[in-house]
Amino acid sequence: MDAQDLSQHLAARARFSMTKMTKIDCFRSMRLLVGLNCFEPGQEQKVHAHPGADKFYFVVSGKARFVVGEATLEAAAGDLILAPEGVPHGVERALERTIVLVGIAPPPPA
Amino acid sequence: MDAQDLSQHLAARARFSMTKMTKIDCFRSMRLLVGLNCFEPGQEQKVHAHPGADKFYFVVSGKARFVVGEATLEAAAGDLILAPEGVPHGVERALERTIVLVGIAPPPPA
Repeated sequence: MDAQDLSQHLAARARFSMTKMTKIDCFRSMRLLVGLNCFEPGQEQKVHAHPGADKFYFVVSGKARFVVGEATLEAAAGDLILAPEGVPHGVERALERTIVLVGIAPPPPA
Repeated sequence: MDAQDLSQHLAARARFSMTKMTKIDCFRSMRLLVGLNCFEPGQEQKVHAHPGADKFYFVVSGKARFVVGEATLEAAAGDLILAPEGVPHGVERALERTIVLVGIAPPPPA
């Protein structure tokens, strides 16, 4: 299954960059993208929206301040953040080294 | 957002039953279902497949023996299991009390 093994330990797949947050695809089809967003402390993801696609973030480890709709909220390991289609969302600031599992259906262009 | 709050702490949403594994919806649209599967030790989910839909399991806590395609594999907290469309998958046996985050795109009927 080229680059999308059926079993993956996510902490082992995470990659960090000193310059900006990173994105790693774990699985991609026409229906679903599952991937990781990896943040060093202080890194961000600008607020954006996906017209016609639903997204979630699940914090695997670490802690970050998310924006979703009108809200700003701190989320840590075990928290699920939902961004239904069209709802603006992003990461204002990672408060620790943070790994986030992300799902988007359908995926944006690669 | 009726029953699908934009921020959810998953461990607080988990519900267990002594009789069988439970399913809890966290978010549902025509494109994506995100939910929890909760297992007491020894509970199972029969092997099944979703034609035309991609699915993943992410083990939030606990440990279980999964079936995916031809493989049987043990997965614990932090492991992602992928079941692309048509690939048979299930949980042969939970080895501990286990919470699994599940995503299916598009969702099966409610």
